[in-house]
Amino acid sequence: MAPVGGAPKPPKKGILERLDSGEIVIGDGGFVIALEKRGYVKAGPWTPEAAVEHPEAVRQLHREFLRAGSNVLQTFTFYASEDKLENRGNYVADKISGQKVNEAACDIAWEVSQEGDALVAGGVSQTPSYLSCKDKAEVKAIFQKQLEVFVKKNVDFLIAEYFEHVEEATWAVEVLKESGKPVAVSLCIGPEGDMHGIPPGECAVQLVKAGASIVGVNCHFDPDTCLKTVTLMKEGLQAAKLKAHLMSQPLAFHTPDCRKQGFIDLPEFPFGLEPRILTRWDVQKYAREAYNMGIRYIGGCCGFEPYHIRAIAEELAPERGFLPEASEKHGSWGSGLSMHTKPWVRARARKEYWENLLPASGRPYCPSMSKPDAWGVTKGAAELMQQKEATTEQQLKELFEKQKFISSMVA
Amino acid sequence: MAPVGGAPKPPKKGILERLDSGEIVIGDGGFVIALEKRGYVKAGPWTPEAAVEHPEAVRQLHREFLRAGSNVLQTFTFYASEDKLENRGNYVADKISGQKVNEAACDIAWEVSQEGDALVAGGVSQTPSYLSCKDKAEVKAIFQKQLEVFVKKNVDFLIAEYFEHVEEATWAVEVLKESGKPVAVSLCIGPEGDMHGIPPGECAVQLVKAGASIVGVNCHFDPDTCLKTVTLMKEGLQAAKLKAHLMSQPLAFHTPDCRKQGFIDLPEFPFGLEPRILTRWDVQKYAREAYNMGIRYIGGCCGFEPYHIRAIAEELAPERGFLPEASEKHGSWGSGLSMHTKPWVRARARKEYWENLLPASGRPYCPSMSKPDAWGVTKGAAELMQQKEATTEQQLKELFEKQKFISSMVA
Amino acid sequence: MAPVGGAPKPPKKGILERLDSGEIVIGDGGFVIALEKRGYVKAGPWTPEAAVEHPEAVRQLHREFLRAGSNVLQTFTFYASEDKLENRGNYVADKISGQKVNEAACDIAWEVSQEGDALVAGGVSQTPSYLSCKDKAEVKAIFQKQLEVFVKKNVDFLIAEYFEHVEEATWAVEVLKESGKPVAVSLCIGPEGDMHGIPPGECAVQLVKAGASIVGVNCHFDPDTCLKTVTLMKEGLQAAKLKAHLMSQPLAFHTPDCRKQGFIDLPEFPFGLEPRILTRWDVQKYAREAYNMGIRYIGGCCGFEPYHIRAIAEELAPERGFLPEASEKHGSWGSGLSMHTKPWVRARARKEYWENLLPASGRPYCPSMSKPDAWGVTKGAAELMQQKEATTEQQLKELFEKQKFISSMVA
Amino acid sequence: MAPVGGAPKPPKKGILERLDSGEIVIGDGGFVIALEKRGYVKAGPWTPEAAVEHPEAVRQLHREFLRAGSNVLQTFTFYASEDKLENRGNYVADKISGQKVNEAACDIAWEVSQEGDALVAGGVSQTPSYLSCKDKAEVKAIFQKQLEVFVKKNVDFLIAEYFEHVEEATWAVEVLKESGKPVAVSLCIGPEGDMHGIPPGECAVQLVKAGASIVGVNCHFDPDTCLKTVTLMKEGLQAAKLKAHLMSQPLAFHTPDCRKQGFIDLPEFPFGLEPRILTRWDVQKYAREAYNMGIRYIGGCCGFEPYHIRAIAEELAPERGFLPEASEKHGSWGSGLSMHTKPWVRARARKEYWENLLPASGRPYCPSMSKPDAWGVTKGAAELMQQKEATTEQQLKELFEKQKFISSMVA
Repeated sequence: MAPVGGAPKPPKKGILERLDSGEIVIGDGGFVIALEKRGYVKAGPWTPEAAVEHPEAVRQLHREFLRAGSNVLQTFTFYASEDKLENRGNYVADKISGQKVNEAACDIAWEVSQEGDALVAGGVSQTPSYLSCKDKAEVKAIFQKQLEVFVKKNVDFLIAEYFEHVEEATWAVEVLKESGKPVAVSLCIGPEGDMHGIPPGECAVQLVKAGASIVGVNCHFDPDTCLKTVTLMKEGLQAAKLKAHLMSQPLAFHTPDCRKQGFIDLPEFPFGLEPRILTRWDVQKYAREAYNMGIRYIGGCCGFEPYHIRAIAEELAPERGFLPEASEKHGSWGSGLSMHTKPWVRARARKEYWENLLPASGRPYCPSMSKPDAWGVTKGAAELMQQKEATTEQQLKELFEKQKFISSMVA
Repeated sequence: MAPVGGAPKPPKKGILERLDSGEIVIGDGGFVIALEKRGYVKAGPWTPEAAVEHPEAVRQLHREFLRAGSNVLQTFTFYASEDKLENRGNYVADKISGQKVNEAACDIAWEVSQEGDALVAGGVSQTPSYLSCKDKAEVKAIFQKQLEVFVKKNVDFLIAEYFEHVEEATWAVEVLKESGKPVAVSLCIGPEGDMHGIPPGECAVQLVKAGASIVGVNCHFDPDTCLKTVTLMKEGLQAAKLKAHLMSQPLAFHTPDCRKQGFIDLPEFPFGLEPRILTRWDVQKYAREAYNMGIRYIGGCCGFEPYHIRAIAEELAPERGFLPEASEKHGSWGSGLSMHTKPWVRARARKEYWENLLPASGRPYCPSMSKPDAWGVTKGAAELMQQKEATTEQQLKELFEKQKFISSMVA
Repeated sequence: MAPVGGAPKPPKKGILERLDSGEIVIGDGGFVIALEKRGYVKAGPWTPEAAVEHPEAVRQLHREFLRAGSNVLQTFTFYASEDKLENRGNYVADKISGQKVNEAACDIAWEVSQEGDALVAGGVSQTPSYLSCKDKAEVKAIFQKQLEVFVKKNVDFLIAEYFEHVEEATWAVEVLKESGKPVAVSLCIGPEGDMHGIPPGECAVQLVKAGASIVGVNCHFDPDTCLKTVTLMKEGLQAAKLKAHLMSQPLAFHTPDCRKQGFIDLPEFPFGLEPRILTRWDVQKYAREAYNMGIRYIGGCCGFEPYHIRAIAEELAPERGFLPEASEKHGSWGSGLSMHTKPWVRARARKEYWENLLPASGRPYCPSMSKPDAWGVTKGAAELMQQKEATTEQQLKELFEKQKFISSMVA
Repeated sequence: MAPVGGAPKPPKKGILERLDSGEIVIGDGGFVIALEKRGYVKAGPWTPEAAVEHPEAVRQLHREFLRAGSNVLQTFTFYASEDKLENRGNYVADKISGQKVNEAACDIAWEVSQEGDALVAGGVSQTPSYLSCKDKAEVKAIFQKQLEVFVKKNVDFLIAEYFEHVEEATWAVEVLKESGKPVAVSLCIGPEGDMHGIPPGECAVQLVKAGASIVGVNCHFDPDTCLKTVTLMKEGLQAAKLKAHLMSQPLAFHTPDCRKQGFIDLPEFPFGLEPRILTRWDVQKYAREAYNMGIRYIGGCCGFEPYHIRAIAEELAPERGFLPEASEKHGSWGSGLSMHTKPWVRARARKEYWENLLPASGRPYCPSMSKPDAWGVTKGAAELMQQKEATTEQQLKELFEKQKFISSMVA
């Protein structure tokens, strides 16, 4: 494998250069959900040790997003903070180490980025330490450790993403900003604001003031909800006369029934979300709306598979002037179906057909919406204190009882 | 790459040896749908040139199925017959050649099979020639060409799959049988029988008489429907006092609303099927039922991703005595969630929760069932004659009009 | 009130005269469900003491059906057998007497029948005695008592309806036949046959042989299912070279999810059936299909309100040559909406709009289908033995426990 | 029939006396929808000539509501203004006259009110004149004519209901107030406010300042939405330091998908609303919530049948201290089912069963929510000008085309 970090880089346009010139930047999709399905990530801890354990799987997924049109390859370092890698019995901190995971993730992203026109973004995300009420210095030290790797590996820019509390996100931005590299930041919040009730507009203002050049949301909600939230951020920034680029990386799941904390609360999370998965046409609609409201960093998060990213690239091909590599294997708006054997499937090779389709679930015994779990706890609640030892049988039993009680109240 | 075919094989138990001893054989999942989403297969023609163009993508998918528990790696040769590779403007026959595609597919499957306990199965499927009313000799010659590669590459056994007409499947079995290797065969039919109306029981009898050792169904219908069909096959064989092993490789889509020709007719096929995707718990239920009714070759077809195969392996782990490699990253029945940060998600770390969940679609404007297209044509109808040249604009226009007319009748 | 029975009758055409000449006879709708909602019938016992207690309410409902197009007014004597009127703590047998209830019902039906072109049909239905394994003589004696009233009041013809067991229905026909009046009989069964598993075709043969001139089904299933059952009856009669007129009086509830015992088993029975109620357009479709398959006695049962009957009369107005009185207040296919204030509602004043509408439930947390209760008991099971004393608290408690257990098994 | 108006009245407590003392007043249900189904009202014009043409039908419905627990009988004078009775080809103004309709409605309501503890309320509603931009004096004159009848017939109090524009409602209150009788007023608006965008809180303030003693909403939305709107009204009044009693008379249809103009816009209005009908348990939940938020005049509007009103009376029986007459035929929370023949139905004779039921629609091809028509026109738009002559074929044709165009845009 080629040396990473110190190696001579091709002269790619930087992230701000692109956005400042009005270019559309297409993000990538969700690694933890995709790699969980492929067999390399454990749902629950969701940590990225696959970068060390199975680099070929991570590499292949990066490559698929690149071919689908991504201009950014985020290092697979979600939840790769040291405190997360040792939370609730996780073996990774001990057996592998956070540093090795972060380094491996950078190497793989860099390697694949050389195969096309994509930048590498080093990513940090919210920490168990913050949730467990550790102080600012302790939390910042966590981010600092990851940043050291990103600087050493010379990533193109930095993303702080998946923060439920703007306070923690601000701390992350402050740390990342020290590197001198451009910083993007996205919260996993909805229109109601962060877990402490701070509205999206004010969150955006705080983050830009802390040094972020790109601000937006990722994860937790579907495209419709995310775009509403980014609109509120945009309005907040305008009111404060602040400038920043906007980004959105929503779920590829329909979540009209979510409340404040998003899809984590849905009873289907994380192993029964299939009926909610976006079609490629849902994504095309999202890409168009995001573009129309002025967002230029458009990507996805959990649930976004390579074909969802391709749908963004195909929808915005007129504006960008080209199709992604993977579109060789996909005729826009289903036109490839003109090669199908059956005549009634060839009859579906057109835009009008797919954009008007209301797809059935094939699940007549299931509802269309769910009541989310609503435990009403956030940072500070005892149940949210994290621990190094595995969750005990007794702790689980108490949770099971509580869940039954609460859902009998909700019904 | 290691030499293939002639290379010394590890002493694996053969497919019949396994089944005869009562062992469970886990099949793999659907390549064309999975690789379409990953960006390597074109929906419509669905041909497998990725084996030549992007072997790393095919290899990775094989590996994921192997790690998920598959005991069989089917060569990625679905629709790899010469006549399909040149149908309706397809470039593959001319630019690559069917032989190269079939050879590459064998090499990749063999290579990955060395990483675990899996056999390689060479696969053929139904042909445009049959649909276009070519005669028996012509159709058999098509299969013969693929078989030559499988013999040269020394695959472990052969599968003739995805046949809508038992007549064509019988011809395929006859050809494959000449190799002396065990032959499995599966039709893509439902309880109503094949496209000519021959009931499943009689289909099974014809196929076993033609030389198949393993018989069943794949594709076109969901697990419930497929198991009904296999039950009818089993009853047919018992009535005829014939013996054969049973196999099932259903869709990973719920299709209670399908009619005779299966999911091809659903208005959501192929780009709006997301809400129908099986959860892993749906698959566990399927695996248990398949096992209980005596099926021992249990796998999946279109829509089956690696995690669906893993669900079969986990459900049948008590019978098999071990878990697949990928289960390192998956605690059975969601037990890995005991490591989740949020207490209400930890409360889902148990079987009772997931087996009773009725997952919502998040799509309140969509129905739960669809009216399938019902053009009522099969082999012999002019619209089903295939052609080498691409479908013309005029042909498409006529199909679009016909579709609008028919769906206005159905509503 | 005018004298009944002995009074001179207008020269109306009899039921067989009408049917023999190919005339369409429109039945009426469901009294117990309609009057329960109006406040005069108790769900559970469903007995018809309102004929004595609130004759004005019964009279008004008869009148509404007459104005809607009914050619038959069934006496409100459903479940008016003496043994039912004293079942499980019912006060009616003791405080009023079965004879008085039956007489009052005859008087009211006769009175309203004079307001239009409708016949009066005296009706009997299945008995607790049969279910509790009383012998043939005892059960026949129950019917005999009701028949005495019908003969005295000189009803136009007789209907034995709502029988789950063809054996009991045959006994009823034999009793009614003694009067010399025409006898119609309808079972509340589906395509699977009666509760003892006797198929619809054979049921029909037995009933015609016992003396019924009109045979069919009522209640328990939606129109689609009922028409399937009548089709099987028709085929059975044809095979046996027997002749009879066909009748259908289905539910006005959609029940695609019912099993053998019909809507009684649905978890929504009887107080949560609202989302299943047929629209008038569903009824028009039913009326057309019933007519097309040769049924000439076309009515409804539980759930059929006057406007549902009007929909039958409007759909079949071309064949009958006239509209019912109530159509003064209803323009066919919504044409009265041309008088609406809002333009977008006037835009709905046409057939195309309503026949293509797929109405939403407004209930996104509810499924489209339910799993029926499936206790698998019928005549002979201890739990089906009826009793004169009210169900005790202890009996109820046992049933509640059993229900919870069974539904946890079904989920 | 007893003399009306001048006859000596029993000493009933007046409406304000009741409300001032904290008593719960139960309203009645919706006459036009109920009588349309019974065959006496024409959907589209919705005018109340049945009071003259079929008094027995109107009387019976009043009686059913009274027996169900209503303390108010609203005269059946909805849309009984002279300009409505001659709108778009309506024959009533010419052939009967508005005065006779209003008088007959008063007589019937008074007659039935003598059978129990109910007051008679004379009602006016919004006018075509206002929609057609007639001036204040002209619109007031319309209300004045109806008021003359109410004064002559000496009704107990007055209700101005079903107003989309608070301006018109204010005019109505001013007119009614001249009689010296208590005036209640309800708008058919949702949380977004009236058709001119005036928020509910401000609407309430204007109405109370105009002289209304009771203020609230009726029709157009389901209970959930109506209670939200009344909450906003309550907050508006509190902020303005005004006092008034609150009332709510919502639809008996689920309408989560409605926009500003309510259920008129739903594609199912008015002939496909069945799947949305509230169960009695939905109504009990509504009654409890209305009571808890301080509403004391609790009734229903379109879709409310007698059993829905009974559900209010049963839910609030603990507070009121008694059950309505019709509850003789209804055991609270389904307890009457303890008398059912089948054991699994007896097992449903309990609160826990019904309050947790999520009823299925039996319509797997239908969605749970609809996109409302959104023509975006209100008072002043040419399409909303009313006319005496019937809608012409040409006018209809244009509307049909417009509807098709708009719904193709919405899809």
